[in-house]
Amino acid sequence: MKEKTIPYKIYLEENEMPTQWYNVRADMKNKPAPLLNPGTLEPMTAQELSGVFCDELVKQELDDVNAYIDIPEEIRDFYKMYRPSPLVRAYCLEKKLQTPAKIYYKFEGNNTSGSHKLNSAIAQAYYAKEQGLKGVTTETGAGQWGTALSMACSYFDLDCKVFMVKVSYEQKPFRREVMRTYGASVTPSPSTSTQVGKRILEAHPGTTGSLGCAISEAVEVAVGSEGYKYVLGSVLSQVLLHQSIIGLETKAALDKYGIEPDIIIGCAGGGSNLGGLIAPFMGEVLKGEKKYRFIAVEPSSCPSLTRGKFAYDFCDTGMVCPLAKMYTLGSGFMPSANHAGGLRYHGMSSVISQLYDDGLIEATSVEQTAVFEAAEQFARIEGILPAPESAHAIRVAIDEALKCKETGEEKTIVFGLTGTGYFDMVAYEKFHDGVMTDYIPTDADLQPGFDAIPNIPEK
Amino acid sequence: MKEKTIPYKIYLEENEMPTQWYNVRADMKNKPAPLLNPGTLEPMTAQELSGVFCDELVKQELDDVNAYIDIPEEIRDFYKMYRPSPLVRAYCLEKKLQTPAKIYYKFEGNNTSGSHKLNSAIAQAYYAKEQGLKGVTTETGAGQWGTALSMACSYFDLDCKVFMVKVSYEQKPFRREVMRTYGASVTPSPSTSTQVGKRILEAHPGTTGSLGCAISEAVEVAVGSEGYKYVLGSVLSQVLLHQSIIGLETKAALDKYGIEPDIIIGCAGGGSNLGGLIAPFMGEVLKGEKKYRFIAVEPSSCPSLTRGKFAYDFCDTGMVCPLAKMYTLGSGFMPSANHAGGLRYHGMSSVISQLYDDGLIEATSVEQTAVFEAAEQFARIEGILPAPESAHAIRVAIDEALKCKETGEEKTIVFGLTGTGYFDMVAYEKFHDGVMTDYIPTDADLQPGFDAIPNIPEK
Repeated sequence: MKEKTIPYKIYLEENEMPTQWYNVRADMKNKPAPLLNPGTLEPMTAQELSGVFCDELVKQELDDVNAYIDIPEEIRDFYKMYRPSPLVRAYCLEKKLQTPAKIYYKFEGNNTSGSHKLNSAIAQAYYAKEQGLKGVTTETGAGQWGTALSMACSYFDLDCKVFMVKVSYEQKPFRREVMRTYGASVTPSPSTSTQVGKRILEAHPGTTGSLGCAISEAVEVAVGSEGYKYVLGSVLSQVLLHQSIIGLETKAALDKYGIEPDIIIGCAGGGSNLGGLIAPFMGEVLKGEKKYRFIAVEPSSCPSLTRGKFAYDFCDTGMVCPLAKMYTLGSGFMPSANHAGGLRYHGMSSVISQLYDDGLIEATSVEQTAVFEAAEQFARIEGILPAPESAHAIRVAIDEALKCKETGEEKTIVFGLTGTGYFDMVAYEKFHDGVMTDYIPTDADLQPGFDAIPNIPEK
Repeated sequence: MKEKTIPYKIYLEENEMPTQWYNVRADMKNKPAPLLNPGTLEPMTAQELSGVFCDELVKQELDDVNAYIDIPEEIRDFYKMYRPSPLVRAYCLEKKLQTPAKIYYKFEGNNTSGSHKLNSAIAQAYYAKEQGLKGVTTETGAGQWGTALSMACSYFDLDCKVFMVKVSYEQKPFRREVMRTYGASVTPSPSTSTQVGKRILEAHPGTTGSLGCAISEAVEVAVGSEGYKYVLGSVLSQVLLHQSIIGLETKAALDKYGIEPDIIIGCAGGGSNLGGLIAPFMGEVLKGEKKYRFIAVEPSSCPSLTRGKFAYDFCDTGMVCPLAKMYTLGSGFMPSANHAGGLRYHGMSSVISQLYDDGLIEATSVEQTAVFEAAEQFARIEGILPAPESAHAIRVAIDEALKCKETGEEKTIVFGLTGTGYFDMVAYEKFHDGVMTDYIPTDADLQPGFDAIPNIPEK
């Protein structure tokens, strides 16, 4: 009967919302390795980083000591417009699966960006505004991050210059228009408005661009324009810090009903949503207070954690950004044939990488047709049409729930539903038409990427 | 200081959600005129209606006596997956407008159908299932209703056949794919799968279809298939009944904080969202307990209430459906040059029409560029990217708030934000590119429609 008292959706009250982010690095015994200057191979200093990033964000990037960092009131006010996000009890899914498992998901898709990206975008825009900047530059692939940043900049009256990978710019005009609605300027990359863009266009006429190229263009414009800085939507430790709002709300909602999770599952591309979701729970584990299973789910076609190397590598394809120690497939690795654009990154957050290397996180990879099967099943039962990225977590959550059906265990499973798939219908169409393919790279396929990883001696 | 206690978003607790719909007709002194059989001009009987509609829905359609109708538990369970919807205090908009007005909006877009349509779709699917039907048929224009019905049918394992206006089928493939994800079959209309479709294709080869034609095809298939009935997403009194959940939740949320609205605003196409939003408030007015201003907002290009005639007319272009007494521009009226597809209907719910004729509702019309200006302003300030339909209500809410700024009045304004505009980016693009036009029909433009209204003597 106690069961019945848990509602379908747990919403925190406004006054129960977190007022501080949680910085999991503070409680890690093995700290994530520092970013290195690719020229000197010395740790990047605050001064070096502040050429590209806002001062306060540099501070957050380098801070592995302070466990709690106040969320400024202006950001909390913005959060109140679309947060707290619901923690949903998947009663209908449980019933359909006939599992004794109890399944919860934290749904981050109820905002116009359609994903969790807004949690960090608003923070980064706020600090840019505080520093008196005119605007920020960034890159976007499929468009979620660009949309989130456009929304955040619009709110703080900041200019927002987005370099959008050309193929997406052309194939996803709706995403582009959403950004324009929020006042952003959106440039297809490579473009003729930067030196690096011109060079790439000369060398590869007709190229449809890449995330690495778009990053390089955005950084060039930020560094070369008075009053502009560059911002990034994932991978960085500052982004994981902002995303801890997801986990803190999840934990507060579970605590409110006395629920103890057994397994916490998140999809992993750059690692920011997973890092945010698990942060406070991992904190308990690190302090020896609790035990949980954490599962990172990545696409088989881009298996950074499950098949990558733990090494210093470039964060961008253009090899202009600092080196990060992470699980990586090599900065030149080009994943193909996968519709979860947000998970197609060669590396992984250095925080997640360290925790994984320490054996505190499990990782698994799944194939995309199995992911879309889970996505469709979930949509039909729980109503929400998930983003392909999010559906990676759904796949494993369902698999774990089915294992419970076998064993009769009443495990409590929590997963992150990072966003909606409204702009991914081309992928769904392929799935419906039976023309979606799976791709698992062979070891030989992975070798060229590994060969390009620089050989940096450990200090 | 009391002000501060009202959160940005008011969510009802699950146990505060309505358990009954409210049937405003029960409290109307002047009842809406009955539907007439187009052949006999006599009121449609339950038996006649049950050839097309489910039995329980026929009962609801004809019931103008019972004020409260229980919401079956299965429907309430489904509602719990995406309801209660938030009643949002538009603090940021108020601040930007520098108005003393207090603005609230009831947001119905947080579900995969993207609009309020799901509230009635799930009810209609439930009653179809209860009656032991195999499936239902319907038409859809832009696709919101079709999506909502697909979701509802998927939940109850009902077959769902959607006839989608061909031009939308071709121009909005994403909408089509969402419906397919939920297992619906989607046929472009006119099609060769019905007699009426074949006739129309012979007479007009190359036609891109119309809602009227799609309705006729859906009805033909429902009537001709064992175990199928036809369902409709707006206009009908049963739909307004189901949509009363919007108003009931709104009223409960306002009551919880002791808030008394002065003005309640909704966009009006077929009338179902407006009818649902205002229902319980109108009930108080009808019983002489309260006074509110109700404002129906329609596009200038399709001004049923503000410039139409109050007369018996056909509900569909094909003139096969019953006659309804309503404000109408004539069933042959073809509105053009407007992107709010959901508001392009020649007539208006007979409930709304009667209340308007009785002077209980005001109506106003707005031009689409002014609507998109409001939409963009709202998106940038409140974060949510509104559907063009919903933005009609935003336009007038902002105008009323600006009037308060002039007069210094602290009015409380509530409006219905019926849905999101993620699938309407073509319209936003036109607006951004400065190529959106306004269209106000002349009296001469309206005359052919009026000429086609049948002359039915009042009983």
